[in-house]
Amino acid sequence: MKKVGVAIVGFGTVGAGVAEILQKNRGLLLARTGLDISLVRIADLDITTDRGVAVDPSILCTDAFAAVADPAVDIVVELIGGTGIAKKVILAAIQAGKAVVTANKKLLAEYGAEIFGQAAEKGVDIYFGASVGGGIPVIRVLREGLVGNAIQSIHGILNGTCNYILTRMENEGLPFDEVLADAQRLGYAEADPSLDIDGFDTAHKALILAALSYGVQFPLDSILVEGIRGLDGRDVRYAAELGYKIKLLATVAREESGVKVFVAPTLVPKAHMLASVSGVFNAAMIRSDMADDTLYYGRGAGRRPTASTVVGDIADIARNLAAGEVRHKNVIPKTGEPTPLMAASDMRNAFYIRLAVDDRPGSLGRITTALGGHGVSIAAALQKQGDEKPGAVPVVVLTHLAREADIREALDEIRASGVVTETPVFYRILKD
Amino acid sequence: MKKVGVAIVGFGTVGAGVAEILQKNRGLLLARTGLDISLVRIADLDITTDRGVAVDPSILCTDAFAAVADPAVDIVVELIGGTGIAKKVILAAIQAGKAVVTANKKLLAEYGAEIFGQAAEKGVDIYFGASVGGGIPVIRVLREGLVGNAIQSIHGILNGTCNYILTRMENEGLPFDEVLADAQRLGYAEADPSLDIDGFDTAHKALILAALSYGVQFPLDSILVEGIRGLDGRDVRYAAELGYKIKLLATVAREESGVKVFVAPTLVPKAHMLASVSGVFNAAMIRSDMADDTLYYGRGAGRRPTASTVVGDIADIARNLAAGEVRHKNVIPKTGEPTPLMAASDMRNAFYIRLAVDDRPGSLGRITTALGGHGVSIAAALQKQGDEKPGAVPVVVLTHLAREADIREALDEIRASGVVTETPVFYRILKD
Repeated sequence: MKKVGVAIVGFGTVGAGVAEILQKNRGLLLARTGLDISLVRIADLDITTDRGVAVDPSILCTDAFAAVADPAVDIVVELIGGTGIAKKVILAAIQAGKAVVTANKKLLAEYGAEIFGQAAEKGVDIYFGASVGGGIPVIRVLREGLVGNAIQSIHGILNGTCNYILTRMENEGLPFDEVLADAQRLGYAEADPSLDIDGFDTAHKALILAALSYGVQFPLDSILVEGIRGLDGRDVRYAAELGYKIKLLATVAREESGVKVFVAPTLVPKAHMLASVSGVFNAAMIRSDMADDTLYYGRGAGRRPTASTVVGDIADIARNLAAGEVRHKNVIPKTGEPTPLMAASDMRNAFYIRLAVDDRPGSLGRITTALGGHGVSIAAALQKQGDEKPGAVPVVVLTHLAREADIREALDEIRASGVVTETPVFYRILKD
Repeated sequence: MKKVGVAIVGFGTVGAGVAEILQKNRGLLLARTGLDISLVRIADLDITTDRGVAVDPSILCTDAFAAVADPAVDIVVELIGGTGIAKKVILAAIQAGKAVVTANKKLLAEYGAEIFGQAAEKGVDIYFGASVGGGIPVIRVLREGLVGNAIQSIHGILNGTCNYILTRMENEGLPFDEVLADAQRLGYAEADPSLDIDGFDTAHKALILAALSYGVQFPLDSILVEGIRGLDGRDVRYAAELGYKIKLLATVAREESGVKVFVAPTLVPKAHMLASVSGVFNAAMIRSDMADDTLYYGRGAGRRPTASTVVGDIADIARNLAAGEVRHKNVIPKTGEPTPLMAASDMRNAFYIRLAVDDRPGSLGRITTALGGHGVSIAAALQKQGDEKPGAVPVVVLTHLAREADIREALDEIRASGVVTETPVFYRILKD
């Protein structure tokens, strides 16, 4: 029976979960893999705080690099987070010829090409299943189950904090600020919630999915990222009346002219599986040329679900090491011609537009004329009973597929023409 | 670049799909695996019918065993189906030291232990990802992603024919026979639909999932299998009114006294993700100790989705072969003490019961007394406006958790007492 030594670097929430699983389910892992996967080192600056998991004190240390260098360590599990020391630890592990597991989406979204390149050069495995979707095996599926498929699109609810807020806004009719404050009180949102609610966490994950699907790493500042901050409860309500739920979606898709990658609050038809994803749960719907639509659902964060995926990666690498093999040499496979990123202005989507229309004859006509003048075709227009300022009437327009730039120009023109009393609000609609 | 030779044995729907993917997406597979996965043999008794995929005629042959023996063949893909020649081909491949991929759920449900045993003895890989869930990677997830998890329960919609019929009954209010006839006309149901609608296909899959989860192979005739044949439209309607959809569910769960495995039409709460699975789509919800709930959704059958999973297995084995490794030595891992199968009579579920109650004073009282006398506690009872025979009133009872034997005895007593004009109907309810 082969023994495989694991070091956890970063003994926070997920690190404690990994330690728990490796110890509690060690027999299960042995029965299933035939390998003795053994936790031999835990490194953290704080090795005194109780993490709710009993570990042999002799494996604790404060020096991450000593843990990496320990000859008993075959696999380094980086769970520090961020792009500073975490990157140094991973590169040190690679240089020492150790396999790496990480859940660090920010690091991979920013420095993936460099890190994967070094791993390939040194011939070590790097697995990062938990960097997208927590306990959901979306990365495993992209790399393995769908290996024979060209990926056409991925639509993902990839941030539990946002989905929790959106679910409560929808179910309870509460305003954004109130639910956010509640989520912070309950520990579902950080004191500084920007990474989640402004869409950046989801964007990091979208960039990793795009890299795996299309072999290209785009920088964060090249893609459209809109979060849910300040989402108006009226839009949640009107969307519901029209048969949609608003979800913060990551969209990654191949179109003729390039790859479309963006993050934005998006109207999802209620009959769509993604509309059924509530609370802190995450899901990704992948459309591919052979398997067609498949969806993966589960907890996108949390100690045990994230650790479950980390341990799945550890077990895979342990099997690789036992076979003397490096399995995923080609982390971001180049699967064809280099693929350009579509400019956000060129993306085509159906849109939901809400306008506070000045209640005078001709206003609606000028709006439809402006939209039509930019080639935007209207699928439905509804005048709502609203709580706008006196003299303004809320009007919701659903469009057919339209170019993003055309929508923006039409709305600029509408605003400039003085027929609306507020800046128009618009969201994209998920079309099947 | 290593070359891996594949033989497809059985050139039917799925075989043609595998040939299509291996040829059309060969470059993709090469980019992602670094291996040249090459289709070198196709064996079928009929090698003249056009399968809608162009193949080099020189690779076609009518002798399955010659294909298996061909030295260019490293992986034998068995897609004949059934338990006759398919079994012989697989065993011949194993004896010849070739790796095997199969989608044959019936064969594995009946002869899995023997086949896996021989594969282990000869030291060859056998993969069977497409035997459960078609294009959905539920087996991959059980073997890999959730490798660090103890499986608590699996609830699966694993037969597209049944789910198609149930979806149309629900959405269009049509009777079972009419939808079945339509499904047969459209090619969604076989001329002899028994394997699907009587639940046996789902049961084969449930037995494979139970084996992977708990290390035990139970025989088909040891488990409770109820299909959807003759399902009454009233039950679909009443269930909908009560907030449920009726789905043919495979249930596999670990309880204190053993493993619970059964297949039966089951009421699924509408807010449950499984209730959103419509038409021919399949899904499995897995609850495990670390990842908690995860769900996998997609097309459970069909040429390309099933072939997609077969190709995922082929790619995995190709990677194993390139590394000189047998990866899944331990196909049905013994993860603890041998686990007994719970007797169906001992299973505890919540129940939906429909009774045609004789419209006389005291009838309802005798029913509630009979249920209470067998320890069955009532959660809700509703008298419906119905289309029963004159003098009879439809009554629907929802119970709390109750022992199956107690329900059956109580209903026998109710029937014997003469207060019902039809045999009572009952279904189990999925509880979260």
